[in-house]
Amino acid sequence: MPADLTDAPLTVTAFDWVPPFAQGLVRDLRVRWALKEAALPYEVELLAMGTQGAPAHLARQPFGQVPVLTTADTPMFESGAILWRIAEASGGALLPEDAAGRTRTLSWVFAALNTVEPPILMYQQLNRLPVDKAAAETIEREVRKAVERRLGQLQAAMEGRDWLAGAQFTVADLLMATVLRGLRDTPIVSQFPKLDVFLSDCTARPAFTEALAEQMAPFAENAARYAAE
Amino acid sequence: MPADLTDAPLTVTAFDWVPPFAQGLVRDLRVRWALKEAALPYEVELLAMGTQGAPAHLARQPFGQVPVLTTADTPMFESGAILWRIAEASGGALLPEDAAGRTRTLSWVFAALNTVEPPILMYQQLNRLPVDKAAAETIEREVRKAVERRLGQLQAAMEGRDWLAGAQFTVADLLMATVLRGLRDTPIVSQFPKLDVFLSDCTARPAFTEALAEQMAPFAENAARYAAE
Repeated sequence: MPADLTDAPLTVTAFDWVPPFAQGLVRDLRVRWALKEAALPYEVELLAMGTQGAPAHLARQPFGQVPVLTTADTPMFESGAILWRIAEASGGALLPEDAAGRTRTLSWVFAALNTVEPPILMYQQLNRLPVDKAAAETIEREVRKAVERRLGQLQAAMEGRDWLAGAQFTVADLLMATVLRGLRDTPIVSQFPKLDVFLSDCTARPAFTEALAEQMAPFAENAARYAAE
Repeated sequence: MPADLTDAPLTVTAFDWVPPFAQGLVRDLRVRWALKEAALPYEVELLAMGTQGAPAHLARQPFGQVPVLTTADTPMFESGAILWRIAEASGGALLPEDAAGRTRTLSWVFAALNTVEPPILMYQQLNRLPVDKAAAETIEREVRKAVERRLGQLQAAMEGRDWLAGAQFTVADLLMATVLRGLRDTPIVSQFPKLDVFLSDCTARPAFTEALAEQMAPFAENAARYAAE
């Protein structure tokens, strides 16, 4: 698999503004964070909120989402795919050197996005359904149980170690941390002490702090303009 | 990245029985299908339903799920991770030869599992919530809208082509087909003619038919035993 990201100018596409509930969670954050961990330089292209359905954007991102990573080769979409390519190009910064470690990392990347994240997405989205109070409480309780079950299993799997795939911080830890941050408006992660420490360790990394500040800066700059519309 | 799957005896772990709603959908189906497309021989280990929480299984699959793919190297979990490794080892059967085509395939693999599948999982699961009829109808309507929105975008992206990543069937098509099959008890896919044809084309492949028969056989054999318990 070619690690061609080092040959080319890289551009991350992000939104110039999003509503407050999504600020700090938009998925270009993962990509910025990973590029900083891998010491790969990049430019940022800001997409005006509301233009994500334009044909030019859909041609490179079929679902109208961000991020896109534009490379010399081909534009890439899906943060998970982009992060795996960055990890392969990171010279060991985000991926173990040994084959077994790389394979474990790959399993954990998909576990973050396809086993742990789906109930968290459900929790975020279903809290906003237009149903009566009793039904809303039932939904919240049931989906919360599903989230807690996954986090309990995740915590058990991390027993005795600091990182998901072995002795070093990898792209899987970075992804899992961004997934767990989806619960930031709830006390759920704090019920799992090991995960709470893991998330703090991940978000204390300078590359995370810088990536977050970089995502948030245009939201502040453009807030007045979007509020006026 | 080492394509070490060709060196080793491979074992797929699957359940010996699941309830009817899950029969034909359990995720070892994807792995069996991909291994057959790649002409990689494998053994099957059947896990007795109800023993997925045993420590020996959790040691290799932290969430108590199937499939696991046991290789000479390390046991792998998460069907998406396993499929990507099989594709890399498939000598072009499941992955284009060119770098840009491989990158597009990787993006579509994650799109299947992290953008298209989450609302489908939601639809499957929320239909069973213990809420009153009016709330259940509201939930069904809202989640169905989210599913239809994604399928509409997917159909638009496939305009003018037969396969997701280019001219050939790839691991991304295989995965997307198994994701769409999660809607088999609904008429939703049939609302999208292009996707309906795509799904038929995928499931008409001999490797799919054989993989499905192989998954279903033990369910039939063990049905009486589980019914009696």
